[in-house]
Amino acid sequence: MSTPATPAVPRPRFDADLPERFARSAAAPEGVAGRTADVHGWLEERRRAHDFRVERIPFAELDGWSFDPHSGNLGHRSGKFFTVEGLRVTASTDGRDRQWHQPVIRQPEVGILGILVKDFDGVPHFLMQAKMEPGNRNLLQLSPTVQATRSNYTKAHRGAGVRHIEYFTDPGRGRVLADVLQSEHGSWFLRKSNRNMLVEAVGDVPEHEDFRWLTLGQIGELLRRDNLVNMDARTVLACAPFPDPDGLALHPDTELLSWFTAERSRHDVSAEPVPLADLPGWKRTGHSIDHEEGRYFGVVAVDVRASSREVPGWTQPLFEPTGTGVTAFLTRRIGGVPHLLVHARVEGGFAETVELGPTVQYTPSNYAHLPPGERPPFLDLVLGADPARVRYEALHSEEGGRFLNAESRYLFLDADEDQAPPDTPPGYRWATPGQLTALLRHNHYLNVQARTLLSCLTTGAVHL
Amino acid sequence: MSTPATPAVPRPRFDADLPERFARSAAAPEGVAGRTADVHGWLEERRRAHDFRVERIPFAELDGWSFDPHSGNLGHRSGKFFTVEGLRVTASTDGRDRQWHQPVIRQPEVGILGILVKDFDGVPHFLMQAKMEPGNRNLLQLSPTVQATRSNYTKAHRGAGVRHIEYFTDPGRGRVLADVLQSEHGSWFLRKSNRNMLVEAVGDVPEHEDFRWLTLGQIGELLRRDNLVNMDARTVLACAPFPDPDGLALHPDTELLSWFTAERSRHDVSAEPVPLADLPGWKRTGHSIDHEEGRYFGVVAVDVRASSREVPGWTQPLFEPTGTGVTAFLTRRIGGVPHLLVHARVEGGFAETVELGPTVQYTPSNYAHLPPGERPPFLDLVLGADPARVRYEALHSEEGGRFLNAESRYLFLDADEDQAPPDTPPGYRWATPGQLTALLRHNHYLNVQARTLLSCLTTGAVHL
Repeated sequence: MSTPATPAVPRPRFDADLPERFARSAAAPEGVAGRTADVHGWLEERRRAHDFRVERIPFAELDGWSFDPHSGNLGHRSGKFFTVEGLRVTASTDGRDRQWHQPVIRQPEVGILGILVKDFDGVPHFLMQAKMEPGNRNLLQLSPTVQATRSNYTKAHRGAGVRHIEYFTDPGRGRVLADVLQSEHGSWFLRKSNRNMLVEAVGDVPEHEDFRWLTLGQIGELLRRDNLVNMDARTVLACAPFPDPDGLALHPDTELLSWFTAERSRHDVSAEPVPLADLPGWKRTGHSIDHEEGRYFGVVAVDVRASSREVPGWTQPLFEPTGTGVTAFLTRRIGGVPHLLVHARVEGGFAETVELGPTVQYTPSNYAHLPPGERPPFLDLVLGADPARVRYEALHSEEGGRFLNAESRYLFLDADEDQAPPDTPPGYRWATPGQLTALLRHNHYLNVQARTLLSCLTTGAVHL
Repeated sequence: MSTPATPAVPRPRFDADLPERFARSAAAPEGVAGRTADVHGWLEERRRAHDFRVERIPFAELDGWSFDPHSGNLGHRSGKFFTVEGLRVTASTDGRDRQWHQPVIRQPEVGILGILVKDFDGVPHFLMQAKMEPGNRNLLQLSPTVQATRSNYTKAHRGAGVRHIEYFTDPGRGRVLADVLQSEHGSWFLRKSNRNMLVEAVGDVPEHEDFRWLTLGQIGELLRRDNLVNMDARTVLACAPFPDPDGLALHPDTELLSWFTAERSRHDVSAEPVPLADLPGWKRTGHSIDHEEGRYFGVVAVDVRASSREVPGWTQPLFEPTGTGVTAFLTRRIGGVPHLLVHARVEGGFAETVELGPTVQYTPSNYAHLPPGERPPFLDLVLGADPARVRYEALHSEEGGRFLNAESRYLFLDADEDQAPPDTPPGYRWATPGQLTALLRHNHYLNVQARTLLSCLTTGAVHL
């Protein structure tokens, strides 16, 4: 009987006040650490404090990483970190079959992405970290309190390692406000999930120059700038409980869930690891593995020097997309209630065939060769949008520990009834922000791109 | 724009009346089809009407099924139905590693298990079918309205096949009350899920002698008998919305979900298909594939003759467990509120490493060789239970289309504080029935054995 004594008193199943507390934080433009404008100065100062350089190198100069002589898979001699392998995806939808091959990152362990929460002057604040990642174009961005792989935090238990990890691994150090497994990029990772956690700290939290307490409103203000808030922070912030006092929707929850179940059922997806060597459609040189048509992404290698990491320097592979992505929710008020148009997407690396993504999530250059009739629905609508209808637009980076210069334009775009009627094409459905954030209490409903856009709502970066 | 026109009027997200309507049905001991006692006569009559024999045969007499000369996998020449393959499971928990090999059923397509619902005299009734399955000891049991593989219901679209399937595949024929993907047996199937659906019929439903409308209370009465209500019916009935007016629990929902997320994270499970030929620890004869120690289950073949199926006769493989299982929830009132002790179980075939099972779910003969200290927690408590503490006990069969004589004693057992204190061993947690049925709106939280026991609550077969 190893858990600490729990008083055997039943409590209410739901914390009814939490969404309102978080809404108060989203409405707070200043916080205990001062004005939002000061954050830029602090980030610049941390950037200077952490000497950090990233250089491309040929695969042959990777230290400890090599291609397996049989499979051609790229891995580290320790067996740790991750491997780059081949993947064969066979997807069948309503009798139509597709098959493709691609490199994929395999990293079976579950990491922790966690943000500490604490009230100051009655307003919840979130402990954000200034953290370097080699793949981000500007290297340093605002990150969660904790961003740790299993190897990191197991080491932490032995006394070294990740600052503040104890709040996320030791029950009793805080009160859990959200804790859910969410997928990472299904196009680049094979069945990779991380724990997304919000934990309210009990007692004082030690200060450190790399960390600042910010309100949701301050983070929302920073989310309106390009490349300031990193992907790991965005996905955790999306899981913040969100008020939905009216509880109205075009499709009641049971109907929305039934549509989602039907979408998961109508796609049969089989994703099998295959050798990276001689992967059909891909070619390897001394510097990269690329698609033969120059589309999608490549695998490259970098040398990293940083003073602020546990290890003074290292080399590693990264995935580098060939173009900038476009990731957008179409939005409409239906009967006065704001709705978002979600898309049930198949990505080869999802644990369960389909997750809900934004209306549009593509790298346009990958589709430029197609005639208009064969291009993805709503893509041209987003690319040609009237600026007056753009409610939100910013460039954000994907996970900078695995991806190099992986940037997307994230948008919320007002649509009218002609462009996006209530009756949607197969695979698309209108849902309210309240419905989507309720789904985020459970794993694998919303993909990481949808979660980035939802973090703009939970922080008040955009109002619908 | 292929879906029918939807009026663009937002509605309440939740149907607040539904749990009460279902509770009314659970409280109804008689229904439109008469007394529950009459159901036995009807089942006997259907049993006589359907001439049905099952005989064991050697593998060599299987028609259309054969062992692949290379992999030794057992499959059908059409590529349809399912295959029996080998599986290597590697599970690592808190640094302790286990590995085992076993045969497994692979059947990638998602089937539909659906029950039609309709009010008679203001009380919801459920359309149950008298259906033969070769693996059930008594062959015919009470089944859902529809129990169809994808191949079945795709054929149905061409005009043949499954009676009433249109209510579950054509939006507009009914109103969906529940629709969720749930796992099948993770110890015997590799990542197999079925859609569990409750659909309220719009308009008259044609009558048929194999079908009867029953109240939840009547089905609950039948669930107190051995081997009358089949597994597919039980799992769908578990998804019926369940009232929880007080909304109290020892662990609030966020805390319970956080524990579940931690359980999913602390187990790394890798399940890889391997050839069935020369599977370590298993041996194949002309009649069966068995574990070398005689434990767990075997793979056998049967010849089936039935007059009521689309095909007049067929042969097929079945899995046959070596003993009768024991599957039990320990229950306690904590602060006056009924709770069940759930167990976070690793089963090799789960899509996501861990699901919640009952407190005890074992075939005792598989553990008889172990000293008491190494036997599963709570097993001896259940096996030695004072009959006065048994709140519910019945023998039920698992899916009779894949398993032969696979029976378990299902129990609810009152525990006292000494036997099962509020502070639980790692991997166990107290949860209320309201919490568990709320989780059943989402996929892959509760395993099929837990769902059988929950169907006893939603139908009123047992009151806590």
